[in-house]
Amino acid sequence: MLSFESDYIQGAHEKILERLAETNREPLSGYGNDKYCESAKEKIRQACGCEEAEIFFLTGGTQTNQIVISSMLRSYEGVVAAETGHVSVHEAGAIEHSGHKVLTIPGHEGKIKAEELAAYLKAYWEDTSHEHMVFPGMVYISHPTEYGTLYAESELASIAGICSKYNIPLYLDGARLGYGLMSRETDVTLPKIAQYCDVFYIGGTKVGALCGEALVFPKKNIPAHFLTLAKQKGALLAKGRLLGVQFDTLFTDDLYFRISAHAIEMAEKMKEMFREKGKRFFLNSPTNQQFLILEDGEMARLQELVKFDIWERYDEGHTVVRFATSWATETGDVENLREIMPSGGQ
Amino acid sequence: MLSFESDYIQGAHEKILERLAETNREPLSGYGNDKYCESAKEKIRQACGCEEAEIFFLTGGTQTNQIVISSMLRSYEGVVAAETGHVSVHEAGAIEHSGHKVLTIPGHEGKIKAEELAAYLKAYWEDTSHEHMVFPGMVYISHPTEYGTLYAESELASIAGICSKYNIPLYLDGARLGYGLMSRETDVTLPKIAQYCDVFYIGGTKVGALCGEALVFPKKNIPAHFLTLAKQKGALLAKGRLLGVQFDTLFTDDLYFRISAHAIEMAEKMKEMFREKGKRFFLNSPTNQQFLILEDGEMARLQELVKFDIWERYDEGHTVVRFATSWATETGDVENLREIMPSGGQ
Amino acid sequence: MLSFESDYIQGAHEKILERLAETNREPLSGYGNDKYCESAKEKIRQACGCEEAEIFFLTGGTQTNQIVISSMLRSYEGVVAAETGHVSVHEAGAIEHSGHKVLTIPGHEGKIKAEELAAYLKAYWEDTSHEHMVFPGMVYISHPTEYGTLYAESELASIAGICSKYNIPLYLDGARLGYGLMSRETDVTLPKIAQYCDVFYIGGTKVGALCGEALVFPKKNIPAHFLTLAKQKGALLAKGRLLGVQFDTLFTDDLYFRISAHAIEMAEKMKEMFREKGKRFFLNSPTNQQFLILEDGEMARLQELVKFDIWERYDEGHTVVRFATSWATETGDVENLREIMPSGGQ
Amino acid sequence: MLSFESDYIQGAHEKILERLAETNREPLSGYGNDKYCESAKEKIRQACGCEEAEIFFLTGGTQTNQIVISSMLRSYEGVVAAETGHVSVHEAGAIEHSGHKVLTIPGHEGKIKAEELAAYLKAYWEDTSHEHMVFPGMVYISHPTEYGTLYAESELASIAGICSKYNIPLYLDGARLGYGLMSRETDVTLPKIAQYCDVFYIGGTKVGALCGEALVFPKKNIPAHFLTLAKQKGALLAKGRLLGVQFDTLFTDDLYFRISAHAIEMAEKMKEMFREKGKRFFLNSPTNQQFLILEDGEMARLQELVKFDIWERYDEGHTVVRFATSWATETGDVENLREIMPSGGQ
Repeated sequence: MLSFESDYIQGAHEKILERLAETNREPLSGYGNDKYCESAKEKIRQACGCEEAEIFFLTGGTQTNQIVISSMLRSYEGVVAAETGHVSVHEAGAIEHSGHKVLTIPGHEGKIKAEELAAYLKAYWEDTSHEHMVFPGMVYISHPTEYGTLYAESELASIAGICSKYNIPLYLDGARLGYGLMSRETDVTLPKIAQYCDVFYIGGTKVGALCGEALVFPKKNIPAHFLTLAKQKGALLAKGRLLGVQFDTLFTDDLYFRISAHAIEMAEKMKEMFREKGKRFFLNSPTNQQFLILEDGEMARLQELVKFDIWERYDEGHTVVRFATSWATETGDVENLREIMPSGGQ
Repeated sequence: MLSFESDYIQGAHEKILERLAETNREPLSGYGNDKYCESAKEKIRQACGCEEAEIFFLTGGTQTNQIVISSMLRSYEGVVAAETGHVSVHEAGAIEHSGHKVLTIPGHEGKIKAEELAAYLKAYWEDTSHEHMVFPGMVYISHPTEYGTLYAESELASIAGICSKYNIPLYLDGARLGYGLMSRETDVTLPKIAQYCDVFYIGGTKVGALCGEALVFPKKNIPAHFLTLAKQKGALLAKGRLLGVQFDTLFTDDLYFRISAHAIEMAEKMKEMFREKGKRFFLNSPTNQQFLILEDGEMARLQELVKFDIWERYDEGHTVVRFATSWATETGDVENLREIMPSGGQ
Repeated sequence: MLSFESDYIQGAHEKILERLAETNREPLSGYGNDKYCESAKEKIRQACGCEEAEIFFLTGGTQTNQIVISSMLRSYEGVVAAETGHVSVHEAGAIEHSGHKVLTIPGHEGKIKAEELAAYLKAYWEDTSHEHMVFPGMVYISHPTEYGTLYAESELASIAGICSKYNIPLYLDGARLGYGLMSRETDVTLPKIAQYCDVFYIGGTKVGALCGEALVFPKKNIPAHFLTLAKQKGALLAKGRLLGVQFDTLFTDDLYFRISAHAIEMAEKMKEMFREKGKRFFLNSPTNQQFLILEDGEMARLQELVKFDIWERYDEGHTVVRFATSWATETGDVENLREIMPSGGQ
Repeated sequence: MLSFESDYIQGAHEKILERLAETNREPLSGYGNDKYCESAKEKIRQACGCEEAEIFFLTGGTQTNQIVISSMLRSYEGVVAAETGHVSVHEAGAIEHSGHKVLTIPGHEGKIKAEELAAYLKAYWEDTSHEHMVFPGMVYISHPTEYGTLYAESELASIAGICSKYNIPLYLDGARLGYGLMSRETDVTLPKIAQYCDVFYIGGTKVGALCGEALVFPKKNIPAHFLTLAKQKGALLAKGRLLGVQFDTLFTDDLYFRISAHAIEMAEKMKEMFREKGKRFFLNSPTNQQFLILEDGEMARLQELVKFDIWERYDEGHTVVRFATSWATETGDVENLREIMPSGGQ
């Protein structure tokens, strides 16, 4: 069945499978101590324009968020995030499970506002009894957000400035970073992210890899003994090569950017088609995730023809749904979707 | 200096000090295995009208909340509480530190509304992806709330019914329970609490004891090996007698209720005085904590004459402050307060 | 360079890479809800002779150990293991990080003795103050052990009987299970393991997979909401297919057993060669890991020609080293090793 | 019944009860922000000969151990202790519950040996794979030990030197410190402890207080925001005065030392009596805890006449038992014990 359910419904880019096969029998040391990990790290440093970046490969997003947050915070600190942030809502409490509160501020189509962050931090530090409250020790943003939206460079700069003022790190969750970087409506680049953020990850799982996220510490600030911290959370792969080869491939010949751009092209086609069909958009997303408001009856009928993600209830009678493209979406898929998608959107 | 800063600014009721002295040299086994703990438990069972209640003494409120919540929840479960609940805001993240998310719903003068709780739980369980979200595994309420307000019996019954429907325990934080039970505006009694709640504690620290809370499991539902669970959190006193003697004294001849009633009498006098002076109340509290909105200049002048608690900012120029009476407040204290309190309230 | 460093120095069996490529573009739901996971589970159930087994795929051994132990124990319980057990020594404290003590008993070439386990449990429960001690809540064994040794069926049966008497689960860490099952000196089969153990895992990472362990609960005893428990620890792969396809392949046409048998054949060849060369064995291992005692000078010379693992100091002047074969070892590798291996062993 | 069960079977020194009564109605701010806490801290600084010591009051020993260890270690670090150390055995896993492994080395009558510690640390740091092992991040000793024994100053100096070499803190658990300092066979003083140790606590619970331990950081090394760390573990008393008044009293006019000396005098009398009766000592303890080996039949008969602590099995037919004196033991108690104690010791 046709599926736009998510950007992780297919395997890996074929180039990755190829390289895995080519390198398969080479004997390599475990735990990331291999030449492919080294090469991948070097290529990522180049792409980030950051010679001194320290990089660590992990397998998934929640794992990465949990390790970053718990290793960079003191036990009395929490992480500030949008109410709709992945760490707030959809990680089964992984952050709290590691001992830290997620301190929420309003989300605006998935984004936090610099001025609301500033007001939150100001109010916190002026509160006379903050010794009995969780200290805001880090700011978490996702880019693209869970709603597909993006921060402008100026917004990133403002948020980074506030973090800097309060001396807390800014962490950017880039589970879908490629799709953000290749959006037609962004002025944010990888080097700028490395400049504004204290830590971020470049998502692989949703951008062409079988699994894997490249965690980047651009400012010589990787927590001491990070490998052991990862091991202790069960996050250290014995065959680190699996991550090294994948990221080495993704960052060779701009593969990561090219396949991300392809997903964006497919998303733009799909978006245009939705517009032509008169569908009702929940919000304007410039990336690979598109959100529609469907009448429940229409939704039920569509579910028999195509897989998509049910996001949240909109009101009595309507539901927000998500259609996602990915590196693997083909033009034919969008054409097929066009054929089964009825016109009209109320 | 005159002080209405809180209800824990003075030591213990003298009867308690007396009994500590009288029993001081008796050799007693440690860790709560002594006759005073036994006797206190039996008296509390009587007061709760619940023969089979299991009781455990702990030293403080945050400690009790942390142990109750972490011992009754599975790791994937969180506790539902008002945004303003003590566990949400003022325990330095003790609940998250023990691995559990505090799932917040709106607070209304400190209380949660049954219908909002029901809507929250319904929405949660209808959410298609709840496997990736924290399960609501318990409901936490405080009574009196952090704002001095009280649930009516009908409200408790509604909340208990919802908990029962979703098969999750209802936990009542009674840090100031005596002041709630002796309020002139309540229809809630200790036996009713034992009936509606699955676990609750009777606060001692703020109601006449040096320290100590009596945790009550009224339904044969104390977690297995609770003593070991407490020991593991550093919460088991070697000299359990310190808690046993105190609660045995508090529940002899209704001392707990009599001193609570006294605090309420003092609060009512103070409240009337505030009214006469034309002060502006932040909300209507029927218990020992009274909240006023003071103009900042007036507040500053008052602070030189009397200690009170600065609660939160009301608006530019005004602040919410708290005056608390306790078992130890004397009529003369309120009279002295009257003398220094200026008239007018805007 | 020739390498016998470990059994995870090469990629995956080619059949696995093939199947990953063949299934690569099929759109499949995430998080293990796909047909390959289902099929793999069914084949494993067949191989275990256990129709009702519940199976969950995870990526690595430490991760699996941490999740199993922390999800099956109450917070006051610890896991009993050999002093040399992987969970005791080589997981960077992952078990303690999840809150549980590893209670050690002597290891004998990596194995625990039933009578010592029985004595330990008896002494514990007769100790009058065990309320202040960690309860033994599970028994952990590895098979093969970290020293390559194996339990006989009768030993497994005795240990299982003791666990049963004390009503605690027996957990078998099968990181290298294939190599144990295909040893020439074993009477233990997969169905017997499913019979004696309450939970165990079939290791993939070291037996032909890129990553992945198949965790088996043979007695309808999987902890509730296990997927959420895994998610909360960052252990849930978005592309669960990566594990499903691999295990489906390994359990098709007995591939898992055939490649394990091959590794054993290579190990036996290597062992014979060591014997012929007069090397000194540290212990007699019937599986793919072989341990020699090398004089330090000889070790240094050998390290320039072949990679192997430095295990532990034996005495002043001698070191215990490990040579491991795997599914990927070729006859030529052993021949090459023969050529560079000097004779003599003191 | 006559009781030598432990040193926490009676309440508090009467001077403490008196001061609690005298100060009872004074309104004081909570959470340790009161003049009695300040005064007690200053007196302790004097007694330690350490002007810059930072002091924090907690209620019990396990609580103190848990907070010290978890707040001073990074998550990948564990604490090195004797196998028989309180943190290893008798705290229900409180240390592991806070995420840290207790790394054990042999105990010799409760003490660790400097040379064994040095060998352990050396071996650890020379181990090639220590990235997968728990780092030794602190050394824990108790003084007196759980067996009543004491370190000589030279031993403390050696251990401190090793800790210093490896740059890890030395922590001394002084639950019964007074009895150690007043022993007739010691050259260790409070200022020397403050000099050799990085953190230690002066036990109150077992030395005359109702509850309470004074935690001392002598080297300007208290972890940041320690109050919040304590709050987060449920260890912050609202009425901090309860601890302040007690320690202020204990450190006024050398009360702490005088009552400790009294307990030692009683212990020496008891010891002499045991010797005269021909009892068999388990070891030679120079402090308030005395350990005998009793034949099981004799033990059973004695248990009907006097309470004492059953320590551990010695062999088939014999048990190690503990008789403890305390600040509250009276000469008459020892005389009464003499009368019921049979002669002979095999």
